Amino acid sequence: MSSEFELIRRYFSRPTAQAILGPGDDCALVAPSPGMNLAITTDMLVEGTHFLPNTDPSRLGWKALAVNLSDLAAMGARPRWALLAGSLPEACESWVGSFAEGLYACATRFGVDVIGGDTTRGPRNLCLTAIGELPAGTALRRDGALPGDDLWVSGQPGLAALGLAHLQARTRLPDELADSCLASLLRPFPRVELGLSLRGLAHAAIDISDGLLADLGHILERSGVAAEVFVAQLPPLPAQADPVLARRCQLAGGDDYELMFSAPPEKRSELAALARRLALPLWRCGHLVGSSPGRIDVFGEEGQPLAIEQRGYDHFG
Amino acid sequence: MSSEFELIRRYFSRPTAQAILGPGDDCALVAPSPGMNLAITTDMLVEGTHFLPNTDPSRLGWKALAVNLSDLAAMGARPRWALLAGSLPEACESWVGSFAEGLYACATRFGVDVIGGDTTRGPRNLCLTAIGELPAGTALRRDGALPGDDLWVSGQPGLAALGLAHLQARTRLPDELADSCLASLLRPFPRVELGLSLRGLAHAAIDISDGLLADLGHILERSGVAAEVFVAQLPPLPAQADPVLARRCQLAGGDDYELMFSAPPEKRSELAALARRLALPLWRCGHLVGSSPGRIDVFGEEGQPLAIEQRGYDHFG
Repeated sequence: MSSEFELIRRYFSRPTAQAILGPGDDCALVAPSPGMNLAITTDMLVEGTHFLPNTDPSRLGWKALAVNLSDLAAMGARPRWALLAGSLPEACESWVGSFAEGLYACATRFGVDVIGGDTTRGPRNLCLTAIGELPAGTALRRDGALPGDDLWVSGQPGLAALGLAHLQARTRLPDELADSCLASLLRPFPRVELGLSLRGLAHAAIDISDGLLADLGHILERSGVAAEVFVAQLPPLPAQADPVLARRCQLAGGDDYELMFSAPPEKRSELAALARRLALPLWRCGHLVGSSPGRIDVFGEEGQPLAIEQRGYDHFG
Repeated sequence: MSSEFELIRRYFSRPTAQAILGPGDDCALVAPSPGMNLAITTDMLVEGTHFLPNTDPSRLGWKALAVNLSDLAAMGARPRWALLAGSLPEACESWVGSFAEGLYACATRFGVDVIGGDTTRGPRNLCLTAIGELPAGTALRRDGALPGDDLWVSGQPGLAALGLAHLQARTRLPDELADSCLASLLRPFPRVELGLSLRGLAHAAIDISDGLLADLGHILERSGVAAEVFVAQLPPLPAQADPVLARRCQLAGGDDYELMFSAPPEKRSELAALARRLALPLWRCGHLVGSSPGRIDVFGEEGQPLAIEQRGYDHFG
């Protein structure tokens, strides 16, 4: 059994090129870039709520940081620094080493320095805080959407929730589809480049970690607008999945780290070019209207109105 | 049962004068003051490890922020922003309301804006991140202590650990002493003003939350020096407590949010004046020497060397 201090020294003290002072003091010290605003977010992952007890610790390390970088991406911020606070039932070296490997893999991929943290004993819980920078006035806020905006979503929403259903034996996916769904669930890829590129193009953005319709609802409430969503314009459902389950996962599954955003119609060609440049599909799946703030009308494959029972996931709902 | 979003809206959405954007978006947005460095810290409080299940939630709210402000104080940073991530077994309104009351009381007292966070379901766990500012190059780091420095500590270290021993019926304190020990334990007062005033006076500082000798050890290791500590120069032990327990609590108890710092002897009169101005006792309890980095020699009331069994508290030790 290693001590708390040894564990931190061994696994969480890599060089921090972007910090004045990294782990090992009362605080980390950083110098923000002149003239930049900071975007700051914190997300807690709890065993049994956000991940299963047998989750590969390396993937969990990646995901714990990735979900925070997704929040930075949704604001259009460039990620720079992260802090980790973790509670563990025991100081198991192999678990911690594997977790650190995944965490630093994500940090390295996105140019983030892990500058500090806290380690303690208790039920398994990982809390990451991430800080990014963006020029003043350029943030993609939830409250910037306007009537007439197109509504867009990136990637393949719903795969993570399908993967979870497969893991929990609520459905049975063929191997290849299961692999890609489990990758979405266990090793999500935050849309950092997309977020940076949307500055100046999008009016509002959000990551759809609570479910596509639930998070759309947050934009609508904050911006005082309504939305019409056309499922025929969303990405095609995976052919080998139960279509009812797959649609529910796509609209309300949660744990997706794609971006939903609104942008004026005159940006369509720029957004198409951006999708090609990033090799990331962007789906124009609806538009915003000025009446009934917060309302979402969803239309089916044939244009018929759909009744929506659930918009997303609420930890206490 | 309220939803996660309602809870946040109701209890954690007070105005944030020091932020561009507070709770309710993917990230908070702030504008750092030009030319300032940021000090950033995160601390996790776990039920059963850091607080007892029946702890008054209002006091816990105060403490969760206070322990982070203590880390900022130990760097000499002025606290500005905080984020809260919390995991709760259930969305109990009265608990959350009372916790928020204590949290905002501490935030208001120290001029901090609570700018964001995360709420989720799980074993009770509160993770605060605090951010402060300080002029570049003025931070009170652990690695700045020099041989010949005096060693100082503020206030009355050991009361919190005595209070815990009383709560756990390992000792029995008279009512008045119990009250002051429990106040230290449950409503610690971070030494923010002291930390700010020590810039330019102290060479190194730390808060002694892990225990006086354990945290002194961190300064010694990082600075490559040794220390001689004289218990006769520490604050007198409370007369009505078991002297052996009280001394152990003072030297190694932990959960104290006093500052220990090193300063050159020529600052003694300035530090005496500072103690008067802050109405906070500062105890010159030893000095640093250049040999045997990390070594601590403790001398008893009559100057005899003391054998020290335990320096402090280690969550996995």
